[in-house]
Amino acid sequence: MKYYPSSILNAIKNISRLPGIGEKTAERLTMHILRAPKEEAEQLAGSILELKTKVRLCSKCFALSDSEKCGICMDPARDSSLLCIVEQPADMVSIEKSGSFNGFYHILGGVLSPMNNIGPNDIKLRELTTRMEQKEIKEVVIATSTSVEGEATASFIAGRLNKFSVKVSRIASGVPMGGDLKYVDQVTLKRAMETRHEF
Amino acid sequence: MKYYPSSILNAIKNISRLPGIGEKTAERLTMHILRAPKEEAEQLAGSILELKTKVRLCSKCFALSDSEKCGICMDPARDSSLLCIVEQPADMVSIEKSGSFNGFYHILGGVLSPMNNIGPNDIKLRELTTRMEQKEIKEVVIATSTSVEGEATASFIAGRLNKFSVKVSRIASGVPMGGDLKYVDQVTLKRAMETRHEF
Repeated sequence: MKYYPSSILNAIKNISRLPGIGEKTAERLTMHILRAPKEEAEQLAGSILELKTKVRLCSKCFALSDSEKCGICMDPARDSSLLCIVEQPADMVSIEKSGSFNGFYHILGGVLSPMNNIGPNDIKLRELTTRMEQKEIKEVVIATSTSVEGEATASFIAGRLNKFSVKVSRIASGVPMGGDLKYVDQVTLKRAMETRHEF
Repeated sequence: MKYYPSSILNAIKNISRLPGIGEKTAERLTMHILRAPKEEAEQLAGSILELKTKVRLCSKCFALSDSEKCGICMDPARDSSLLCIVEQPADMVSIEKSGSFNGFYHILGGVLSPMNNIGPNDIKLRELTTRMEQKEIKEVVIATSTSVEGEATASFIAGRLNKFSVKVSRIASGVPMGGDLKYVDQVTLKRAMETRHEF
């Protein structure tokens, strides 16, 4: 590829390292940046660097944040008696987008996984206990994923929360909305049947 | 979107400005960069900035280059009696990838377009004349695109090259290789018939 100078080859190589972007797309993006105004390229590069320098975890809920506490933890309009436990920041974002929850979050930063040597001390469980001890929380919704490890983590946390007098719930799992029963897997259908509720 | 801190929102906004990348993809790429090692993000940002600071046009053929002359112009193994005229640097790259040409290039940086007020002085025609006057070139291949403007530019250049005693040729146009005749447009087919050659 000596028909491109090394700085262009470099940009193509670095851009094509991003997930889902192949060499052809990287070439097209590089050409776009070459033609675009200098400010646009600088803004793009600057915001990529900023991701690495500015973003950290909220000291209270461990969500992604620019400052010591995240926007949600600093929101006075939220219900401080409700706490939702999720695995990853992205899970919190999904729940926020659904607009179905108005309490605070606690992001574990992973799930218990003995196979990968991830035990109770490797996820934010101690910090959860500290929050619970403040006795402000009345209900904890455990919203870890419905994978084997997510389910096990949920059970583990529910056990730990026994000593606090709070209501502990688990998000429902079952047939997705708009889903056709014949395409739903058997495990999901079994769970949907077991956790059926009154109409 | 207050569930993301502003530096993340900024990165998503800037990445989604790239062509063919929507907000969802930009979000996914941002999350990837957040998780990736710091060096990777720095290399990516650095190479984007380098595109703007380092890349310039080759002083001889006007291809994209890191240095005063591009890699092709500095290649002693190339046939200096052959010159190929193209519209854009990307056209040169396409011809290079095909491996069908071993001479030098001259990149016009555009086509004549009276509608857009682009005349002979707005593309690198004067520079072409200067190169022709050095009398090293024996054959000029005009490889502008086969659009109306590309064709007109080709005719114009062919006329200008009359005064130099060089062979002037035009890349063939016709049915693309592997093409099915019934899907080829009529103008292309007409041209293919007119410029038929002996078997």
